[in-house]
Amino acid sequence: MNLILLDAADVAGDGRVHLGDSRAVHLLRVVQVERGRSVRVGIIDGPVGTGTVVDVAADAVTLQCQFAELPPRPPVDLLLAVPRPKVLRRLWSQLAALGVDRIILTNAARVERNYFDTHVLTQDCYTPLLLEGLQQARDTRVPRVSIHRQFRKLVEDDLVSLSDAGLRLVAEPGASMIIPEAVAGRRDDRVLLAIGPEGGWNDFELTLLETHGFRRVGMGERTLRTDTATIALLAILNSAIRN
Amino acid sequence: MNLILLDAADVAGDGRVHLGDSRAVHLLRVVQVERGRSVRVGIIDGPVGTGTVVDVAADAVTLQCQFAELPPRPPVDLLLAVPRPKVLRRLWSQLAALGVDRIILTNAARVERNYFDTHVLTQDCYTPLLLEGLQQARDTRVPRVSIHRQFRKLVEDDLVSLSDAGLRLVAEPGASMIIPEAVAGRRDDRVLLAIGPEGGWNDFELTLLETHGFRRVGMGERTLRTDTATIALLAILNSAIRN
Repeated sequence: MNLILLDAADVAGDGRVHLGDSRAVHLLRVVQVERGRSVRVGIIDGPVGTGTVVDVAADAVTLQCQFAELPPRPPVDLLLAVPRPKVLRRLWSQLAALGVDRIILTNAARVERNYFDTHVLTQDCYTPLLLEGLQQARDTRVPRVSIHRQFRKLVEDDLVSLSDAGLRLVAEPGASMIIPEAVAGRRDDRVLLAIGPEGGWNDFELTLLETHGFRRVGMGERTLRTDTATIALLAILNSAIRN
Repeated sequence: MNLILLDAADVAGDGRVHLGDSRAVHLLRVVQVERGRSVRVGIIDGPVGTGTVVDVAADAVTLQCQFAELPPRPPVDLLLAVPRPKVLRRLWSQLAALGVDRIILTNAARVERNYFDTHVLTQDCYTPLLLEGLQQARDTRVPRVSIHRQFRKLVEDDLVSLSDAGLRLVAEPGASMIIPEAVAGRRDDRVLLAIGPEGGWNDFELTLLETHGFRRVGMGERTLRTDTATIALLAILNSAIRN
């Protein structure tokens, strides 16, 4: 935990925060704070700042907080075919840590139907995992998640209101254009990156995406598992945008 | 499995290969091969090629194979502080899939001692996982693994014979130079990338690495977990080398 995330409701008008849960335990046992020590804090979807430890009890910590800047929302949206539940469970915190604004999960021909019935797609499951990733990356901006069972309706009707990205890319192992080329000269554009299921998009899906402005980008000759590919592609994209 | 990996001993002089193990089951049940179908094959640390199914039995497949080019060894070596066993278990196949020539695992001040006692550091554990990653990425070049309990001895005495990389980089969250800048104009150089433990290298370790030619590279403001950071950094490095 490189930042302690707070609910706005945790913070009193004078900036006092009283923690009595796992965050206090983390501060006491792992960070081993004492009175006077400062730690990084942030309000969920709000500003980051500094909290000074003003009181310590058995399993509780009181912080006096000051908040400054609001982190910008990450300039990347992700359109992802629903992965296997085990894979998705691991991805949530990693997506939040890497920095994604919208996580748009979709059905696809090669997504198994029962993937939609899993606990891993419920807010109760993913919200704590997203917050864990934000605390790791020192961000406060919670990715906005939506889940879509009809790929065609999503692409044709809903996507335009979900993401205003000026640049739409679809990862396709064989494509010759690579991400740094695709974003060159487009640094100010929000990017929507589409990543298919294990086994890839089918022809109908790829064509539909291309009809709706998605350009194919590749990653070289190596085919990666969806979870590795997702992390790799987001890392390359973030690096290319910053570079 | 995007490529079937074979031991050189599996292949008869006339290119026949008789499979009766999990690879045959995969071909029959997942790929659903029939006589006449061609599949990608490769010899461990040898050439890739094509295998044509010439016979199919209950749980066995016979291939007639032809081999062509030998994939080059990946141009990247990795110096990695031993991660938590659970994390390392997941990383093996991903490292092989992303493409790493040498995996040099080391102790560091912030590596817990008991990490060295784990099954995950034994060849019996990691070899099948490395092969799984290679089959995913269609490569045959098995990463060469070595494990070092003395960081200082490794850096001062052993590293030069383990990796002949012309460019040595150490990932450090705060560093201002990014990987694409570091490799610009150095495309023909092998790169040795050092990634520290959860919590980072300590000052002694960082100074020792810098004394031995490692330059610090960063990844922007977001701090990532070791496993996410490792995948992200290798992806950015491979992309920058290719670009």
